Amino acid sequence: MISGDSQRSPQPGAGFFEGPTHVLPLRVYYEDTDAAGIVYYANFLRFMERGRSDMLRLLGFDPVSMEIQGEKPSSEILFVVRRCEVEYLRPARLNDGLHVCTSLEKVGGASVTMKQAISRDGITLVDAIVRIACVAVNGHPQRMPAKIRDVFRSLMLNNEGNLRNAG
Amino acid sequence: MISGDSQRSPQPGAGFFEGPTHVLPLRVYYEDTDAAGIVYYANFLRFMERGRSDMLRLLGFDPVSMEIQGEKPSSEILFVVRRCEVEYLRPARLNDGLHVCTSLEKVGGASVTMKQAISRDGITLVDAIVRIACVAVNGHPQRMPAKIRDVFRSLMLNNEGNLRNAG
Amino acid sequence: MISGDSQRSPQPGAGFFEGPTHVLPLRVYYEDTDAAGIVYYANFLRFMERGRSDMLRLLGFDPVSMEIQGEKPSSEILFVVRRCEVEYLRPARLNDGLHVCTSLEKVGGASVTMKQAISRDGITLVDAIVRIACVAVNGHPQRMPAKIRDVFRSLMLNNEGNLRNAG
Amino acid sequence: MISGDSQRSPQPGAGFFEGPTHVLPLRVYYEDTDAAGIVYYANFLRFMERGRSDMLRLLGFDPVSMEIQGEKPSSEILFVVRRCEVEYLRPARLNDGLHVCTSLEKVGGASVTMKQAISRDGITLVDAIVRIACVAVNGHPQRMPAKIRDVFRSLMLNNEGNLRNAG
Repeated sequence: MISGDSQRSPQPGAGFFEGPTHVLPLRVYYEDTDAAGIVYYANFLRFMERGRSDMLRLLGFDPVSMEIQGEKPSSEILFVVRRCEVEYLRPARLNDGLHVCTSLEKVGGASVTMKQAISRDGITLVDAIVRIACVAVNGHPQRMPAKIRDVFRSLMLNNEGNLRNAG
Repeated sequence: MISGDSQRSPQPGAGFFEGPTHVLPLRVYYEDTDAAGIVYYANFLRFMERGRSDMLRLLGFDPVSMEIQGEKPSSEILFVVRRCEVEYLRPARLNDGLHVCTSLEKVGGASVTMKQAISRDGITLVDAIVRIACVAVNGHPQRMPAKIRDVFRSLMLNNEGNLRNAG
Repeated sequence: MISGDSQRSPQPGAGFFEGPTHVLPLRVYYEDTDAAGIVYYANFLRFMERGRSDMLRLLGFDPVSMEIQGEKPSSEILFVVRRCEVEYLRPARLNDGLHVCTSLEKVGGASVTMKQAISRDGITLVDAIVRIACVAVNGHPQRMPAKIRDVFRSLMLNNEGNLRNAG
Repeated sequence: MISGDSQRSPQPGAGFFEGPTHVLPLRVYYEDTDAAGIVYYANFLRFMERGRSDMLRLLGFDPVSMEIQGEKPSSEILFVVRRCEVEYLRPARLNDGLHVCTSLEKVGGASVTMKQAISRDGITLVDAIVRIACVAVNGHPQRMPAKIRDVFRSLMLNNEGNLRNAG
C-alpha cells in the first residue's frame, strides 16, 4: 500500500536558497535535547552539517560519488571539517522550528570557509564559522576539483552582487 | 481531517498520511552513519521517534504542552517508550532517501502500540513494533487523556476501513 | 607535559567478567539525556553496543582487523545487529552510574544471541535480547570463523557451569 | 586535594589529574564514527563535555545538585557552553584509545574558559577552547558561586606553579 518508488535516491537537497544563502528548515526532536531542556551543544554541529550537505546537494553535488553536476573528481577526495568557531547566543528547545543558514565566506584552493547561523523566528541562536578542507584519502590537503571551485565562486559572486544591491 | 497548513512556530508535523499510515521522508546524513558505512543501528530509533512525533503533531498534538487539538491533559503526563522490537533487514547508507512509516497497532487505556517500518524505494530496511506508555511525572502508568485515545481510535478505525477496502 | 605514550592502541576492553557475564560500568552524561530529564531511549542501544564491544575485546577480539586472539578470519566479515528487543523498565538520569551486563544466550553458525541488561545499584532499568549476525561485505550471512565460535561456546559452557553451581 | 575514593552512586568522576590538567581516557566505539571511517566532528564535542564533567566531578562538583564540595549555590544556576573554537588536526578512528585533556585557561566572575585537547598516543588530534558561562534558569548571566570560583582558581594557581616549574 505504501510505496516509495517514485523516489529517486539520492534526491536533491532539502531547503532553498535566499540569494547566496542556503536555508534549511528543521525541527528539534527529543533526540536533540538534553536534561537541561535545551538542544545539546554538539547537536548544533549536526544541524550545521545537514545545512552544508543540503546546500551542496542543491548545487548539484553528490556526497557519495563526490561528483558535482555530473563531473567526477580526477582522484579520490574527501571533505573534512578543519576548524569551527561556534557562538551559542540563545538556547533552542524541544519542538522549535529552526532555520540553518549557510553561506560561503571564502573559497581557497584546497578549502572553503562557510558562515552558518541557526535561527528561530528570525532570531539568531547560534553563529558559526566552519572551514572545510579537501583532502586525499591519506588525509593530505588536496586542491578542490576545478568544477567545485567554480560552483562555489559563482555562488560567492552572487553573494557580492546581493550585497551591492543591498547597499 | 488532517491538515498541516497553518503557519506557526512550532510548525505542524512533517510528512503526510497515506490512509492511516504516517509517512515521514528523511535523508541519511554523515551523523547517522558509522565506520561500517551504514546507518548505526541505534539511529533508526531516532528516525522512528521523528516519525512518531510528526504523526502526533499532524494529529494536532503539541509535544511541549501535551495538548491535543487544543485540549489540555487534566494532569501532567508524559509518553515514554516501554518496549521496542526492531528487525534490521537491510542496511541504509549515506545520502539515502528513507521513508519512516508509522501506524497504530493497538490502543489501550494507558498505552499505544505502533508499527513502524523504514524503507528506501519501497523496500523495507527496518521493521519495528514500539509500545508507548502514558505515565505521570513520577513514572507511574496513567490513563491516556480521553481526547488522545479518541484521536488514536479514529485513526485505527480509518485503518480498518482501509484494510476492508483493500480486501 | 601530558603524555599518552604508554598507551597501546587498541587497549584491552573495559569492564570485567562476573562468571560468564561481562559488566561495563558507565556514566550518564548530558549527551545521553533528553528534555524529559532521562536517558533518551535510543541511547541505551549505544550503551549496549559499548558493552558488547568491550566484552569482545576482553575475549581477545579486535573490531578493526576482526581477528580473535590473533587469528584472522579467512574472508572479510562484519558483525551486524539483526534484531533487538528492548524492554524499558525504569528511567536512567544524568550522572547515574550504570552497569551494562552482557551474556551469551545462544551461539549459532552464523549468528549469536546476547542478553543485555542495564542496571543502577543492582536494579534493572533496561532488559534486551540482541541478535548479531556475521555477514560478508556484500551483506550475505556468513558462517562465523571457527575460532570466534569456539570462544563464544567456551563462554557459554562457563555460563552453564555457573548456573549448575547456583542450583 | 582531589579525591575520588568515596563509594556512592553517583560515583566520583573518571580520569585523573596530571598537575592542573584533567585527563580522561576513552575509547572510540562505532557510535562515534561515520561513513568516512573517522570520528564524526560533532562527537569530539561530546568527548570534550565528558572530560569537563569528570574534571568537575573529581573537584567535588555534583552536576545534578550543582553543589561543589557539599556547598549549595544560593540560587538555581546552570552552566552552559557560550563559545567553542575547535581545530581538527588529525582524524580519530574506530577502537582508538583517546585522552581528553582539560585545563583552565581563565576564570572570570560569571564564566570560565577551558583548554581542551584530544590526543592518541601523545599526538594531538583535536584542540579546543571552550567558554562556559554560569546562568540563572532564565538564561541570564549569573556570578559563579564563590566556592566554585575558589576551586577553579586554586587549580589555576596549581597550573601556574607547574608552568613555573617547567620553565
